[in-house]
Amino acid sequence: MSSNPITQQLDEALAFMKDNASFLVVSHVQPDGDAISSTVVVGWLLQRLGKKAIMINESELPSRLQYLRGFDEIISLKQQQPELSFDAVIAVDCADYRRIGDVAALFPEDCKLLNIDHHPTNNGFGTVNVIWPEAAATVEILYDLIIHAGFVPDQECAGAVYTGLLTDTGGFRYSNTTPRVMEIAASLLALGVSGSQLADHLLEKMTIAKLKLLQTALARLTFSDDLKIGWLYIGKEDLAQCGAVSEDLEGIVNYALNVDGVEVGILFKETNDGAVKASMRSAGKADVAAIAQSFGGGGHVRASGCRLEGPLPDAMGSLVDAVRKALV
Amino acid sequence: MSSNPITQQLDEALAFMKDNASFLVVSHVQPDGDAISSTVVVGWLLQRLGKKAIMINESELPSRLQYLRGFDEIISLKQQQPELSFDAVIAVDCADYRRIGDVAALFPEDCKLLNIDHHPTNNGFGTVNVIWPEAAATVEILYDLIIHAGFVPDQECAGAVYTGLLTDTGGFRYSNTTPRVMEIAASLLALGVSGSQLADHLLEKMTIAKLKLLQTALARLTFSDDLKIGWLYIGKEDLAQCGAVSEDLEGIVNYALNVDGVEVGILFKETNDGAVKASMRSAGKADVAAIAQSFGGGGHVRASGCRLEGPLPDAMGSLVDAVRKALV
Ligand SMILES: [Mn+2]
Ligand SMILES: [Mn+2]
Repeated sequence: MSSNPITQQLDEALAFMKDNASFLVVSHVQPDGDAISSTVVVGWLLQRLGKKAIMINESELPSRLQYLRGFDEIISLKQQQPELSFDAVIAVDCADYRRIGDVAALFPEDCKLLNIDHHPTNNGFGTVNVIWPEAAATVEILYDLIIHAGFVPDQECAGAVYTGLLTDTGGFRYSNTTPRVMEIAASLLALGVSGSQLADHLLEKMTIAKLKLLQTALARLTFSDDLKIGWLYIGKEDLAQCGAVSEDLEGIVNYALNVDGVEVGILFKETNDGAVKASMRSAGKADVAAIAQSFGGGGHVRASGCRLEGPLPDAMGSLVDAVRKALV
Repeated sequence: MSSNPITQQLDEALAFMKDNASFLVVSHVQPDGDAISSTVVVGWLLQRLGKKAIMINESELPSRLQYLRGFDEIISLKQQQPELSFDAVIAVDCADYRRIGDVAALFPEDCKLLNIDHHPTNNGFGTVNVIWPEAAATVEILYDLIIHAGFVPDQECAGAVYTGLLTDTGGFRYSNTTPRVMEIAASLLALGVSGSQLADHLLEKMTIAKLKLLQTALARLTFSDDLKIGWLYIGKEDLAQCGAVSEDLEGIVNYALNVDGVEVGILFKETNDGAVKASMRSAGKADVAAIAQSFGGGGHVRASGCRLEGPLPDAMGSLVDAVRKALV
């Protein structure tokens, strides 16, 4: 044991793994790249330590991540309701206990639980907690844990760590891209990871359904006369018509925001019951959390959302108007 | 002097800078991010060495790079035809002598010239040459040169190096993104560079003109029945109608290529004389250089171009047909 608090946390996490024989490894519902990568990376580390690991998730697994070694072994509760036995639980990338979802029903609440996460809001719900808000992704913590345990990631494991870094930093573009992230990325590339193939597959490629949705939305992209507000909308039939799913909406609002001079970008999405969900993004000047709050929604200063009554044209008119006033 | 060939080249480059009092710093025509960044980085290094530097380029300078310190001091031959005096020339990011363009008319052909570049085809046209094909960008070589000279880049200089890395690696996504690139990026971030702001400004933001062009092109994106070929077109009036310039066409072909399963993406551009320029991109299976050659064009296996006779619909039909046959 060391007196360095970071080393001490890694020691505790490692002791947790060594002191138990079998584990349930779980991440959050509707898992993203960091969640699934963290799951398989912990699975690999446990295997190296001679332990038994069952990997599980409440939700459907994103098929774009199926190249990850171990992906096929992750149980989705949507596919099967298994009878499982294990000594302890490891939760990765879960900001709070509820993010574990229905998987939590598989173990008692006072279960031995190792909580490894990078969300600053994590309340330390584990019996052992490794919470590093300065980490860009949970895989960043896991990389340090692997090195601390005296192992070197093999190429597949390194690829999973790179996957989590890529997805949680938006391809090394978000402000969480620290020197440490780039140093780890350098090490992973040196271990044989094809960074360009991963970036292409995860960040450039899209399904034909998502492309159709983008075509649909982009054709409707409208700007205020002063070019400070850009907005687009997706009607209630559009997803089905494009063969798309809700997660395909992700990123589309950026086409409105990313035009030079635009201060607020908005994506309007008509729901099946005729209401309208709005996602707002701010370039910095406007506090879109405050605007969302005035419509009963919420979020962050630069990314927020709210729900409006339909019909769609009225909803768009009133929110754009509110944004216009906020920008004066 | 060292026996290590890389160190020896850096020694020679440094000696070249120390042995002369004043320099003309030039890069290639139609400069990209690496070209302009390399120009101002060399300007900064020369200043640190107590030398006089005149920075110059044949072409208009891309306004998106005007945040770079020193950008405003770069003379564009498009703006003025200056009378200049200097002892020696430093050419950066120029694959061959002709890439210097009309700036070459300002000095005799047997002039003392330091040629710093990363293009593998560079033929060593300088009196001193530092050519590293393994470098992702010329700024990568310049970073090593600065460190070798015993300096540490200040924040502005570091930002220029980061700019060149970002633009020449497509935001750390191309296969030239080596461990060394990521290590340098880590160092630059530690020096205070805002990587996320640069990535946003250089890779995410676009002008309203480019957005309109993208809207126009994307609305026309068409796929073959088997989804293996995707193509879009820009008619001869479109650029003017969108207020766009030719360089705004860059990257648009990727919307065709980046759909899952697509093997070849094509952008057709009608020229003012009614002919058609085609840019092809291959996901790997098709040799688009060979296809382009059969139409009198050329390029690389995965990126090529050719010129076809109009009218546009006929040109599109015959090239798509040729690609279809190549994919059988
Ligand atoms: Mn995460
Ligand atoms: Mn270059």
